[in-house]
Amino acid sequence: MDERAALALLADDLPAAGDDAAVVGEQVLTTDMLHDRTDFPVGTTRYTAGWRAVGASLSDVAAMGAEATAAVAVYAAPSFDESELREFVRGARDVCAYVEAEYVGGDLDRHQEFTVSTTVLGRTDSPVRRSGASPGDAVCVTGTLGRSGAAIRLFEQGEYDRANDLFRFTPRVVPGLAVASHATAMIDSSDGLARSLHQLADASDCGFAIERPLPIDEAVDDVAPDEATRRELGVFFGEDFELVFTIPPGQLPGVRDCCDVQITKIGTVTEPDEGLTLAGDALRDRGYTHAGEDDAE
Amino acid sequence: MDERAALALLADDLPAAGDDAAVVGEQVLTTDMLHDRTDFPVGTTRYTAGWRAVGASLSDVAAMGAEATAAVAVYAAPSFDESELREFVRGARDVCAYVEAEYVGGDLDRHQEFTVSTTVLGRTDSPVRRSGASPGDAVCVTGTLGRSGAAIRLFEQGEYDRANDLFRFTPRVVPGLAVASHATAMIDSSDGLARSLHQLADASDCGFAIERPLPIDEAVDDVAPDEATRRELGVFFGEDFELVFTIPPGQLPGVRDCCDVQITKIGTVTEPDEGLTLAGDALRDRGYTHAGEDDAE
Repeated sequence: MDERAALALLADDLPAAGDDAAVVGEQVLTTDMLHDRTDFPVGTTRYTAGWRAVGASLSDVAAMGAEATAAVAVYAAPSFDESELREFVRGARDVCAYVEAEYVGGDLDRHQEFTVSTTVLGRTDSPVRRSGASPGDAVCVTGTLGRSGAAIRLFEQGEYDRANDLFRFTPRVVPGLAVASHATAMIDSSDGLARSLHQLADASDCGFAIERPLPIDEAVDDVAPDEATRRELGVFFGEDFELVFTIPPGQLPGVRDCCDVQITKIGTVTEPDEGLTLAGDALRDRGYTHAGEDDAE
Repeated sequence: MDERAALALLADDLPAAGDDAAVVGEQVLTTDMLHDRTDFPVGTTRYTAGWRAVGASLSDVAAMGAEATAAVAVYAAPSFDESELREFVRGARDVCAYVEAEYVGGDLDRHQEFTVSTTVLGRTDSPVRRSGASPGDAVCVTGTLGRSGAAIRLFEQGEYDRANDLFRFTPRVVPGLAVASHATAMIDSSDGLARSLHQLADASDCGFAIERPLPIDEAVDDVAPDEATRRELGVFFGEDFELVFTIPPGQLPGVRDCCDVQITKIGTVTEPDEGLTLAGDALRDRGYTHAGEDDAE
């Protein structure tokens, strides 16, 4: 059973789950786990690991349209090296400071594989769910897509400095707050644009007509040898932690005015029977596939 | 560097850390990680694992004198088996229901070792810290000591049913709330009575004169062949998740009247230069030591 099937299995037992963060009164709460083999390629600094791990949970809070209050983490490793530990905490604190949250500590654990679990607490009195999109709404994304995919390639090539820079994404807490009172549905792009759109469409019972050009990050151009790879990294790879949201089109100019991040309209919400299309072709519900394995949409 | 040294190292950087849970306004937040090799002996059911992992974080909230609001967990395993997953969630939900908290889900992760990270959110407007004990206060403990130590022995002996029963401790959220407005300092006994007392004494800058008999659980008698083992499991083993607190002695009868759990006065707060003693002998600041390794106090 894969993770998605297992999460679906538990959905009936856990009615508060199933969105980017659980809503508990005016609090929102989200937790994630990242570890060496799948999330921190060779060359990832501990500073980047701290930034990125806490950032991933901050992004979930952002996707609820909530302010981020506080973060905790468990740092689990085979041994505790002073400089590594300090760098991790510095990264965790810096990403929190960036979004005006407080990093309040956590716990340490000895573990055979470097593993980090993070939890972020947020607050909102009107969370933005995945389920409110209506036909006619504009589909938008913050920032650019493919940064993490490009970073992975750069890690593989040993270009660690640039890879680390790209890996330290900005959690979109501030834009999330700016769009919160206008967005009809929202999710982060942690599972890739394609899968995130499918999750929004499923929750909202709608279709999406997505159009090109998509805001693919220029770093993707530097590492992608062809258009198929470019599309793979930009559309399917994920882990970019941008916000994907729907909004009545008339409210888009006002939202853009009060955001300091690029917001791109990438399509329109359609009726459910129209399905999910990119430039008129069906957009598959899948995450990252390694080069050559299957790059059809 | 061991965990304690590493935590001490970070103390200056993380002023909100250093207690059982971090205090963020009226919210308290705590996170823990448990995993197969150190925390879930062979024979531990997934139901017990879910109960115990979430219970450990609920206990931290209890030790702040806070009500427990909500819990999340990451369940990380090499594969996802439907019945194991459902049992884990059932254990997590049941322990939350027991203390009137809500289990609101979390995340799944593939990991080579079964690993659980848990986070609990609580609420209080007057958290009980580790640092308020004054000479003359009574030192008290809820429930009995040594259950988890006895459980470990029973797991080793293959007596899985009884071991699992003992492993599913009751987080002391309700007694924690009952003593919160009277206790001067509080901690849970997760690191063992001896180490927990040392942590309270250090934070409060005081000494403790602890007296026998201690409320050792009767399960310890069944597995401990001698007095040294009995003392080891009851005083040093830890992971019992009882509350250890200090309180002006005049307030103890009233607190006992409104608690449905046994509260035992085990000693008196003394001046710092008197140190930490058990029946007049120095009580060492250490956790569990395997039989025969070193059982001197």
